[in-house]
This record gives sequence, C-alpha cells and structure tokens, in this order.
Amino acid sequence: MVNQVQRGDGTLSSRSDSSAASASGGDSSKESSRCSTPVLDADRTDRLRYKMRRRMESGDHWFSLEFFPPRTASGAVNLISRFDRMGSGGPLFIDITWHPSGDPGSDKETSSMMIASTAVNYCGLESVLHLTCCNQSKDNISRHLSKAKHLGLKNIMALRGDPVGSDWEEEEEGFNYAVDLVKHIRSEFDDYFDICVAGYPTGHPEAHSYKEDLIYLKEKVAAGADFVITQLFFRAETFLKFEEDCRPSGSPCVCVQGYQSLRQLVKLSKLEVPEEITRVIEPIKDNDAAIRNYGIHQALEMCRVLLDSGRVPGLHFYTLNREVATMEVLRQLGMWQEDPRRPMPWAVSAHPKRKVEDVRPIFWGSRPKSYIYRTQDWDEFPNGRWGNSSSPAFGELNDYYLFYLKSKSSKDALLVFEVFTCYIAAQPNRKGHKVMCLPWNDEPLAPETNMLKDELEKVNTRGVLTINSQPNINGKPSTDPIVGWGPPGGYVFQKAYLEFFTSSENVNALLKVLKKYEPRVNYHIVNVHGRNLTNAPDMQPNAVTWGIFPGREIVQPTVVDPVSFMFWKDEAFALWIEQWAKLYEDESPSRMIIKYIHDNYFLVNLVDNDFPLDSCLWQVSPPDTEGC
Amino acid sequence: MVNQVQRGDGTLSSRSDSSAASASGGDSSKESSRCSTPVLDADRTDRLRYKMRRRMESGDHWFSLEFFPPRTASGAVNLISRFDRMGSGGPLFIDITWHPSGDPGSDKETSSMMIASTAVNYCGLESVLHLTCCNQSKDNISRHLSKAKHLGLKNIMALRGDPVGSDWEEEEEGFNYAVDLVKHIRSEFDDYFDICVAGYPTGHPEAHSYKEDLIYLKEKVAAGADFVITQLFFRAETFLKFEEDCRPSGSPCVCVQGYQSLRQLVKLSKLEVPEEITRVIEPIKDNDAAIRNYGIHQALEMCRVLLDSGRVPGLHFYTLNREVATMEVLRQLGMWQEDPRRPMPWAVSAHPKRKVEDVRPIFWGSRPKSYIYRTQDWDEFPNGRWGNSSSPAFGELNDYYLFYLKSKSSKDALLVFEVFTCYIAAQPNRKGHKVMCLPWNDEPLAPETNMLKDELEKVNTRGVLTINSQPNINGKPSTDPIVGWGPPGGYVFQKAYLEFFTSSENVNALLKVLKKYEPRVNYHIVNVHGRNLTNAPDMQPNAVTWGIFPGREIVQPTVVDPVSFMFWKDEAFALWIEQWAKLYEDESPSRMIIKYIHDNYFLVNLVDNDFPLDSCLWQVSPPDTEGC
Repeated sequence: MVNQVQRGDGTLSSRSDSSAASASGGDSSKESSRCSTPVLDADRTDRLRYKMRRRMESGDHWFSLEFFPPRTASGAVNLISRFDRMGSGGPLFIDITWHPSGDPGSDKETSSMMIASTAVNYCGLESVLHLTCCNQSKDNISRHLSKAKHLGLKNIMALRGDPVGSDWEEEEEGFNYAVDLVKHIRSEFDDYFDICVAGYPTGHPEAHSYKEDLIYLKEKVAAGADFVITQLFFRAETFLKFEEDCRPSGSPCVCVQGYQSLRQLVKLSKLEVPEEITRVIEPIKDNDAAIRNYGIHQALEMCRVLLDSGRVPGLHFYTLNREVATMEVLRQLGMWQEDPRRPMPWAVSAHPKRKVEDVRPIFWGSRPKSYIYRTQDWDEFPNGRWGNSSSPAFGELNDYYLFYLKSKSSKDALLVFEVFTCYIAAQPNRKGHKVMCLPWNDEPLAPETNMLKDELEKVNTRGVLTINSQPNINGKPSTDPIVGWGPPGGYVFQKAYLEFFTSSENVNALLKVLKKYEPRVNYHIVNVHGRNLTNAPDMQPNAVTWGIFPGREIVQPTVVDPVSFMFWKDEAFALWIEQWAKLYEDESPSRMIIKYIHDNYFLVNLVDNDFPLDSCLWQVSPPDTEGC
Repeated sequence: MVNQVQRGDGTLSSRSDSSAASASGGDSSKESSRCSTPVLDADRTDRLRYKMRRRMESGDHWFSLEFFPPRTASGAVNLISRFDRMGSGGPLFIDITWHPSGDPGSDKETSSMMIASTAVNYCGLESVLHLTCCNQSKDNISRHLSKAKHLGLKNIMALRGDPVGSDWEEEEEGFNYAVDLVKHIRSEFDDYFDICVAGYPTGHPEAHSYKEDLIYLKEKVAAGADFVITQLFFRAETFLKFEEDCRPSGSPCVCVQGYQSLRQLVKLSKLEVPEEITRVIEPIKDNDAAIRNYGIHQALEMCRVLLDSGRVPGLHFYTLNREVATMEVLRQLGMWQEDPRRPMPWAVSAHPKRKVEDVRPIFWGSRPKSYIYRTQDWDEFPNGRWGNSSSPAFGELNDYYLFYLKSKSSKDALLVFEVFTCYIAAQPNRKGHKVMCLPWNDEPLAPETNMLKDELEKVNTRGVLTINSQPNINGKPSTDPIVGWGPPGGYVFQKAYLEFFTSSENVNALLKVLKKYEPRVNYHIVNVHGRNLTNAPDMQPNAVTWGIFPGREIVQPTVVDPVSFMFWKDEAFALWIEQWAKLYEDESPSRMIIKYIHDNYFLVNLVDNDFPLDSCLWQVSPPDTEGC
C-alpha cells in the first residue's frame, strides 16, 4: 500500500514562530552550553514536521513505511532486522500500528510501544506510534503518551480506532473521535509531539458523507494535527480529488503483496476493491508471483501519476511487514537510496536525548544495540569529546541481553580458531555452514574490514582471535562508499585498530615486540580478572576515527577509552560463555575449549597512532606460538 | 646571579597523597565532566611542585628567572616584552620580587602584583610572587594573598623582608619571621599555594650563626614550604656545603652584569664579594664589555660545577631585568630552548581557570593578549569544542586598552596600502622605516605567514588589506619548526585562512567569484555597522587548525566562529581609529583616509575547507578594482 502525506497547513500557521526558527537554522532549541555543537546532520535532530517542510520546499519526495507489531518474540527479532534493512533505504519515517487487543502499551517485546521504541532507540529511525482512543480512559491515554515520551518517541498518529463490540455510543467527556485525542495530546503535552491524523479519500466507512468527513479532517487539523496520512486508495484520481477538496489532506495507492495481503488490507480498511482490480486478480489468485508482479505494476503506475501531479510530497507504504514488493516499487521509482550516506561511522539512535551524541568507544562498534542499551540511562551523552570519565555508568551486564540481541550463533561452530578464520574469509566451515556472525558482531563483516581480510585470516590461524578492527585512513572523501560518513565535501580519517583474544604466551611475545613501537602503538591488554597492562598516557581516550567537514568543528566519533574498555571487557568475555559455550553440553570438548579460553586468554587492543603510514599492527601481532 | 632550587623533602612527605596522585596521572583534580579532557601538556596544568618533581625524577635540569617590578609604565611595557622573549627559552618559572615601598599589592601597572599577574595571564609563565611580611598586619597579608589567588597566581615566595627603620622589634602575634608567613598561608589558604622560602648558604646577614639559620630553614619547611631558593653565592663550594648541611636547602652562583649590577646585587643581598672577584673586577670596572665577559665566564664555570655535582636540580638566575648575559650563560650551558615547542598554536595563559582552554577564535591570533583580556571574566573556557555560543560575553571594547597593549605604531606610516605591503614584505617604507607591526598584530609577521608572503604582497597592492592569514597544512609533523605545535609524534592540520579589509566594490566582485567556490569556501563579510554576509551553515564554528596526537583525543585549537567575529569586528574597526588615525592631526589627509576606510570598508574572512588541495583563496580574492 502506498499512502501520501501532506502537511496540515491550517495548523502550521498557528505555530509558525517555532517552525520559522527551525527553518533558519535548525537549532533554535540548542542550549547555549559550550559543549553542545549542533550535530552534523540536521535531519537527525529536527522534528518530523520540519523535516517534511524542508523536503517539500526542496521538492525532494520522501517515502515512509508502515509496520504492525509482530505476534511472537522471534517475529520481533525478524522485524527489527527488517527495520535495519529497510531503514538503510532512507524512509523519512516509519510508523507502527496500535493493536488494542495485543496489550499495545505494555513492556512486552511484541507490543506496539516496545517495537516503536526499538525502532527509535536501536535502529535510529524516525518513528510514528499509532494510538487509538476509542473506549479508553483519559488516564490510560495519558499514561501511554507519558511512556512514549519517556521512551524517546516524538510522533503520534492519533486515531479513533474501532469500537469494541457493535453497540458503540458516544460517551460524554470520553474519546469519541480522533479529534478528541488530538485535543488531549495538545492540552496535556503541549507541543512535544508531532501529531499525524488519518484522511479518508473515499470517506470514512462510518461517516454519513464524504463532505462530513472533510469537516472532521479540518477539525483535527484545527485541533493541532501537524500532518495527514490518508487511508489506502486504489486510484490516483481518488487522492487527487481529495487533495483538491481539502488542504490539508492525504493520499493512497495500491501495492498488492499476494492475494492474501490484499484481502487482509481490504478487510482492515473496510474498503471496496475496484472492480478493474478484482477482475485481474481473481483468475490469478493462486499464482503468487503473478499477483505480486501485478501489484508492483499497479503500485508503480499510480505512484508515478501521483508524483508527476506535483501535489504529492511523499508516499506512505503499508508494508504489511514484508519488504520485497515495497523495495521493488521504491527502487523502480528511484526513491530507494542504494548507497545511503552514513551520518556517523556507527549506528545512531533517534532518542531525543541522544541527539548531540557524537562520540562512542570503538569496542561496541559491532554491537551498537548493546552499547545503546547499556547507556540508555545516561542523562548526557558525549559530544565533541569523550573526556575523562572516571566511572561511566554502563548498564549491568546481567540485564543487557535484550531479546533481539540474542545469539544467532550456530552450534556448528566446533573448532574455535577455524570459526574465526571462516568468519573473516566468509567461507563455509568444515561442516559446510557459512559463519555469518560471531558473538562479538551483530552483523557480517563490514566492507571496510574486508580491506583487512587477508591479514586478519593470517593472524587468526595463529591463535590471534580478532573480534574488531579498522584500517588506517588518511583523508578519504566523506562520500567514500566504504569508509565515508557525514556530509559531503569532507574528509575522514582513521587510526588502524585491532582487537583480539589471545593466549598469555602470545601476550608475552607481543609485549616484547611492542617495546619497539613506542609511542607509535598504544595498547590495552586485560584478562577476565581485570589484570590490565597499558601504555596509554594518563589513561586518556585516544580518538581513532575523525572527520573534517566544510564549515564545521572537528567530529571524532570513535575513541579507544581505557575506562570503558574495562566495561567492554566484561561483556566480551561473558559472550564466550553466554552466547557460545551454552550452545554445547556441559563437559563437551567444545564447551571445555571455550571455558579454557574465557579463563586464560587476554583481550588486547592496539592502536597505530601513525595514521599516514602503512599500519604496523600486522608486524606487531605476535608470531606463531600456538597452532590451532 | 644563579641560584639553585631544591624540594623541601620534609614537607613532601606530609603531603605525599596529593603528590602521588599527580605523579601517576597528573589529573587527579579533574572534574569527571565529560567535556574536560586533560590538556595536551601536563606541564600546563600541574602545580609547580609536581613539575619540579617530574624534572628531578627524569634528571632534567631546569632554570628559572627572577625579575623586579619596573618603576615606570614604559618600563612595564618593556618588561612584558622581555617576559615573552625570555619565556620562549623555557624557564620552569619566573619570580617577581616584592617592593614594599612601591605599593606592591596595588592595581598599578608597575606593582609586583600586576606584573606577576601579567606574566601568568598574558605571557603564560609559571610565576612565583614574592611576599614580605615584616611590619604587615594579618589582614593586609590575607588581602594580598586573596588578590593573588583571584588573579590566578599559584606560588608565593614567603620572605620576612627588611624592617622599616633600624629599631625593629619582634611583635607578639605579628609576622616576625618568614616562618610566620608560611604558617599563615597554610592556615588561611590550606594547600592552594605552592610556597617557596629562601635559604642562606652563607647564613642570613642578621642571623647569629650559620647553624641557627639552618634551624630556621628547617622550621620553614616543617611549616609547609614546598621548596627553597637560596640567596646568591659566589662559589660553588658554598652551595655544595650548604646542601650537605641541610636537606632541604638551596644554592647560588654569580652572574655579573657590569660592575653597577654587581654592586646593586651585593647591596641588596648584604653579601660580601669574595676577594678573588673584586681583585679581577676593580681594574676593569669602567669596561662594561670586559666586566660582562668576566661575569659570564664566572657564572658558566660555577654552573657547570654545580650541575656536574649531581646535587643541583635547577638554576635560578637573578636577571636584574636584563636578558643578554643570562641568555648567554643558558645558551652555553645548553639549557636555553632554541626551538621551543609550542604547546598550542596560540599563546596560552597560565591562569588556573584557563587550564582546560584549548579552543579560540582565529581572529585574535595576532592579538592574544587582547583576547585573554577580553575573556578574563569567563567562568568556563572552551574545551574540545567552541560550541554554539549565542552570546559569548566578550569584555567591552572601551576598556580593553591594557597599558602594555598600547600602540607601538609609528607615525611614519603615511600611505595606508603601502604600509600593509611593507609589513608583509618586511621592507622599509618610503621614509626608510621598517614596518614591524600593524595595529592588528602584536608582533612581526609569524614565520608561517611568511610562507604566504608573495601572494599577500600581491593582493595588498590591490586594495586587499590583509590583517590575518594562515596557509593550509595537510598533516605536517607536530615537531615542524614553523607550523608544528603540541607533543611530538603527532600531526597538525590547517585550513587556509585569509582576513582583510577591502572596499565595497571589491566585496561585490568577491561575492561573484565566491559563487563558483560553494561550498568549498566559507566567508563572513561585515562592515563597521554590522551588515553581515555569510554562507556558513547554521552559523556554526569552523575548525581551521587541529592536531592528532598519539593516545589523545583530537585537539582543534582554532576556529572561525561567526558569533565571535562580530565582537572581533568591533575591535578590528576600532583599531583604525584608536591606534592609527589618532597618530595624525584632525583633518590631516592621513587621518581622513583612515576615517574613510573605517566608515566604508568591509572586514572579510575566508576559509578554504579543502585543506588537502592547494589553497584557492588567491584565486578568490577580488581582481584589481582600486589601485593604491
């Protein structure tokens, strides 16, 4: 399904002051504190309504994606992965529907609230949470809204929702219509939330007339709604008429994903499918591929008409939690960002309190969700510098196993060293399974790590079990497809970094070699008990990734921080046991090997400070002392 | 004169906790705030006693320089210049004597207090203020100490001083001996000050015996003195015996600066000059050169004996406010830093509250004392980032004319454009005078600006009156003699910068050219009335100098900040009138030209963001529209 979004202009004018401030600089709300410089990417901090305005002013069409909460925990894990994949295509926002029957405001991993929160906090997506008010008490609604605010959600789609049972009657003082919810949000939360409302291009199924519906929409906008998403529609002219009849308004378009989906959508939206569509679909209803192709064709046609009309700033897709058809339509429209620019070297969070965050320790580089989770209670986030944090309050290790951070490790990983080598080489192991991730890495090897593949493979076979690394970079353009990040026109730099587990014999050999590389190479070496060896001056953080941009201060998003390394050490060692050893039975050889490594190996990180020269870390890493 | 300094070990042990903390990291006193990273140079923040300890532990001899307050305002201007010159040789500290008859604690520009404050705040020198207590009330002494603390002074040389009149008697509850002052400082100011006391290798002139004197010294150390500077002596063995007789203690040695100086010194110190010296000096007393050579020879001999003894960690020179002989001795000893490393690209201040300061706007690059003066009331200084400062509270323009910032401009500068060209070329102007400084530059052209000389000369003849510039630098070693700064092993970078006054015709031409260089070149263009043209994104600061060092976060000491530029603009325009026009009579042609420029010209700054490429600023600067 594709819907179109339009700004509620009536509302805009009543809040023109704050929007004008944003348009002229984007940081009117910044504190004057010397430490908080605006982040690189204004889109990361602006309210959704201002992002829309900028896109409308520049004529840059956007798209957005609608998802519903999953039924099961494993469905949630899959959906979060989908957020990451579809987020990389560059949606302006996603929205999560509200399922009143599924305990939508609870802390359950499948609730609407938690899914939206995860999308914002861990996937960094601008998200809109649906909220229905029918049959709800004011207290209940306020509690949901407070919780949403606390979780970092900033946008609400205000809906009436379907009444429970058929004998619905208006309640005095109750929430009878979406407009009551809009008013409530504005009266209780002032201007905090951006509010979206629904438009019905063919009229609300329960409305007495199309005209009456237009009046309701105007009321919602007058009450404080910021923009409108229309219900789905099957013909472009349906939207274009609606858009003409009312500004503010919205628009839809079909994207059929198999007959089943269409049926489901129609049922949900209580719409009638136009005869010209059912006529085509009915004969091919058992041919999934044919249905999908037809749907994509239909959607593309309508989207093109809508975009060509010049009256449609953005398209909203009902994904039904699937990705292939929507991505295909967006690709063919040229709206899918094939090479999305990274705003930062690491995955950002969209929680408002993290908007100035621009420095993180490198250790969680491959486990960004774990880092976000363990720092979620921080009141302030490092900006500009990491600084000397004597005791950063990282969340306890024993509660960091978020459901969707659970191990995806396969049990087929028998020989530890071989697993590491296979992961680096992206080769199948001796049982024929490709090793796609290790406990220390959420995702397959990053493209920039591929630059180091040969060297990494070599050291891994020598008992240097690498879990994190980056090559040195001496001023590549910020638009570089592999190592680039940040706005265009800049230059990015890195110091070479290598982090690995290795035996105490290797550590002893290493320390001898390292003496020859003082002060070029900084090291931190620690075992599970916290015995710590380092040559870092004054235990200061070492910046290992930085960028220089036109008209900006320097950004140094990644540091090697000795203090945080101790917290990471606990997590890195625990992963051997929690995510790997536990795959095997007690007293099994695999489990014993892993236990032995956990108890005896050292975690080592090395930084080559001489970034303009070829990295010397491969010369440094210890010679062959233990085979595998 | 050369004296030697030694730590008071007795005192040390009683404060071993805090000193141990410093020795292991140097930043035990740091706040845990995320924004304050330790500065690059531990010597900049450490207490004097810890700096001494580090130098003693590493066996690295230091020297220090003693000055007395000048009698006149112009003497003060000269002395401050001497501080800058002699400070560049790398003294561990300087000390300023206390002249009870000269209103030493007052705000007069010649007072001991203000001279010491200037040395600390504007010359960035670690300084020790002498303080005598004889005939002083406790209130008076406390007032002096409070003022010293407020001004950023951290070290006191506690002395009894000479009683007024000859009929001195001990007072009950009064300050009768230096030890009383030491006790008072410790009881009223706890551990804030580092305290130095005097040692008398030949015994105090008024002491009953050498032995009694040793007892007094031990009392002073027991009361809380941190180190000892000895009175002057003429023979190395005098000190070495003294050092043996007492630890803690100190040591002296002669450095004769003409017969007059020696006589003065001897008079001040009430010492007898050994006969072997007077015997040499008497016959040559009217030959200044011979006396000086003899003095240097004598001083060198004695210093070498002292240093070779292994019992002398540092040498203290009584400069008598002269520089040639002391510098000569230090050069020959190899202790004078010919190529002093710059800790920062700009002149640092030693006020404790500025210890974390590591970012400044580039505009005051050639007027660092004015910048320090205008920001002296700030409670916090930018560290890590300049940030978005909506209204930095720069001191008012009308009180920034510190006495020693007064114009050194000469009246011979007749033709304005010619003056600029001559300054750049370091050529005499048509009247034969070398133009050594402009109102916008405290000092002659910096060596790095010399790299741009040819280009600067060219544009100046075309009515582009340059007042500040730097070349682009793409990763030169931090030890580079011209553009390097910060600790060794690092790399420094710069974006090309150019700042100039020019006519509105030139500005119009410039704006046309600048369109071709978007977004490569950022500009700010403003006239005296504040009409402001810029293409800076969101009015953000632009980092134009930065450094990458082993084991450190990125340092970006210089920014082009649009907000500060408005404050600089006021100062830069005012300098035309205050420091230049006023040299000429009203209605004189020179004055009219300057007035016209002040009223009609624009101040322009340009940054070329593409630092790895050859600077494009010379192509950008406007074509010839006005001759000179």
